[in-house]
Amino acid sequence: MGEFQHILVKREGETVTITMNRGSRRNSLSEDHLRELLAAFRQAGESDATGIVLAGAGPVFSAGHDFGDVASRDLMGVRELLRLCTDLMRTIQSVPQVVIARVHGLATAAGCQLVASCDLAVAAESAGFALPGGKGGWFCHTPAVPVARSVGRKRLMELALTGDPIDAATALDWGLVNRVVPDADLDEAVAELLGRATRGSRAAKALGKQTLYAQLDRPEDDAYAIAIEVMASASQLPGAREGMASFLEKRKPVWPD
Amino acid sequence: MGEFQHILVKREGETVTITMNRGSRRNSLSEDHLRELLAAFRQAGESDATGIVLAGAGPVFSAGHDFGDVASRDLMGVRELLRLCTDLMRTIQSVPQVVIARVHGLATAAGCQLVASCDLAVAAESAGFALPGGKGGWFCHTPAVPVARSVGRKRLMELALTGDPIDAATALDWGLVNRVVPDADLDEAVAELLGRATRGSRAAKALGKQTLYAQLDRPEDDAYAIAIEVMASASQLPGAREGMASFLEKRKPVWPD
Amino acid sequence: MGEFQHILVKREGETVTITMNRGSRRNSLSEDHLRELLAAFRQAGESDATGIVLAGAGPVFSAGHDFGDVASRDLMGVRELLRLCTDLMRTIQSVPQVVIARVHGLATAAGCQLVASCDLAVAAESAGFALPGGKGGWFCHTPAVPVARSVGRKRLMELALTGDPIDAATALDWGLVNRVVPDADLDEAVAELLGRATRGSRAAKALGKQTLYAQLDRPEDDAYAIAIEVMASASQLPGAREGMASFLEKRKPVWPD
Repeated sequence: MGEFQHILVKREGETVTITMNRGSRRNSLSEDHLRELLAAFRQAGESDATGIVLAGAGPVFSAGHDFGDVASRDLMGVRELLRLCTDLMRTIQSVPQVVIARVHGLATAAGCQLVASCDLAVAAESAGFALPGGKGGWFCHTPAVPVARSVGRKRLMELALTGDPIDAATALDWGLVNRVVPDADLDEAVAELLGRATRGSRAAKALGKQTLYAQLDRPEDDAYAIAIEVMASASQLPGAREGMASFLEKRKPVWPD
Repeated sequence: MGEFQHILVKREGETVTITMNRGSRRNSLSEDHLRELLAAFRQAGESDATGIVLAGAGPVFSAGHDFGDVASRDLMGVRELLRLCTDLMRTIQSVPQVVIARVHGLATAAGCQLVASCDLAVAAESAGFALPGGKGGWFCHTPAVPVARSVGRKRLMELALTGDPIDAATALDWGLVNRVVPDADLDEAVAELLGRATRGSRAAKALGKQTLYAQLDRPEDDAYAIAIEVMASASQLPGAREGMASFLEKRKPVWPD
Repeated sequence: MGEFQHILVKREGETVTITMNRGSRRNSLSEDHLRELLAAFRQAGESDATGIVLAGAGPVFSAGHDFGDVASRDLMGVRELLRLCTDLMRTIQSVPQVVIARVHGLATAAGCQLVASCDLAVAAESAGFALPGGKGGWFCHTPAVPVARSVGRKRLMELALTGDPIDAATALDWGLVNRVVPDADLDEAVAELLGRATRGSRAAKALGKQTLYAQLDRPEDDAYAIAIEVMASASQLPGAREGMASFLEKRKPVWPD
């Protein structure tokens, strides 16, 4: 699946695992690293896989942007970097596969943004989450976008303004992750949740995921206007037809794709 | 209150109880059933009742759409059905009464959407909630609209993508319901919460409820633009006048309607 | 810092404390009281302080609008009062300082709205929160705006429709406040959280806070459009430069303002 320097890409069964592999740099997101992640998600998105795991090798999940790659850039240079980073976040949400974050150690700044941008997230008990721009000089403006849409407002403000980390249990309580498990059980828990999330018709699931993101954060009338049209159209597709037929005929469905 | 085949409608005191009564079909929402529910909510909405209870008879609250009534429809036919269903959901939010869901057993797909669309919800410990389109073929696009607006994003994704049910305690923790009680205490808990939610001026409460739905899901400036104008106008109505006068005169209010 | 009748304003170190001081009227928000609060926030906003504490003297935090100042007003008069009140709420969010509510006793109606409008909130165990318009005549239309944006929809409906108070532990669980502590520890807990929230470059923090409010409650694409531009510009400011340089040089930052 392409030649990468900063990441590992592995396909096993229906699942593509994309592993950030710059452990010596705490998986920080240099421009090259971001470009590889974006390319890997696009390739996986075009594959027939049903699920994607985003993981990190080394001591942490990801420390966010690589200041060594930011500090010397001018305004236009940083803007391009942030647009690339945002392309990655939005691509995670637009690929047809279910994307799950496998989080161990710290996920900070754009690393925390990656967790918030994945459809699902499972964290090891060792995980921590922070928007450390709140501690100092370069505020976590873009990481706060998906984090704000996962946790409540007062909790967002605390994360963004203090810059201090929350532990995995707090992230679960606030709704930033779906599960917290002992570190030794992390891979098993990721596989279990992803397995349940990828059942059924791949085309129907892909349409479902993408429509969820389209209807979020809008007044309810606008959201319904989107969801009604998609759902009516989707009713005519093979996946929906088979789902309904198998239910009515009291048999196991045989998904058409 | 009209002649219905699929539902029971009962008025007791200030409360109208609308009970889905297709227990043998798990209270699934065929077109006829939806039309009766919509008519009953409109009639109750025009009555002088102050509260509406939505309940289900039989083993479950509601299993959602009736696939027997969907499977043979073409695109336009499904579209009409979904528009009817959405009319019901929006009517629940636009009637002047406080609407509370009384949930026992499973509330799945459009049945879960009904719970999310009611103003308040009390669940028995036996209740469960699911968006089962995530398991298979026809994704729960429209049910996800109000569910997304009740629970956090990661929790929505888990419900919508896995299709698996959550129990009543989890629904309470995630904010999908207001109370969970032992099954034997369900009616009492519904009456208690509804009683507190329907006190005071009926006109003021109706205006309040409707304005809440109007201001939700909008940038805060837009929400204030709506709320300020309504609240200023409402200050001149008999309910507000009596509320303020009774407070200042340290006496019990006598509500004008 | 100006001559005030209804409030106390104190500067200690980097923190301005604004205390509602109409204890005999339960810190209710008459027009004069609102005007003083607004003036004090604007003055503090123009100062070089980094944090603002909003507190109440006497038995409660604030009982909301002063019905003695509302009951005799016509539509235009109430409208002006509500616009003034909303100006205060929006000013709390637009000043460059981090604003934290120090809540003891009841915070009701516009008093609860103040808590929801502050960036952060610490509550004493004695605190309670209510939208009492739900009990009676004048519905809490505008207080519900920021409360809706802090807690989930079903919880908002319960607060707004019943008018009954929730205790401090429930407010913490629902995300309306960041901390609950014994009453004796309230000042210490406020200072601790505010201290962590005001570290670093004051200009960067101010830009961060204001951008958070600008991007909230919008579709994610719109939010990113705002956050990317601000974050790219901010990367060129002295605070961000020093933050990145000190990180790369493994030394303590020296903030430029």
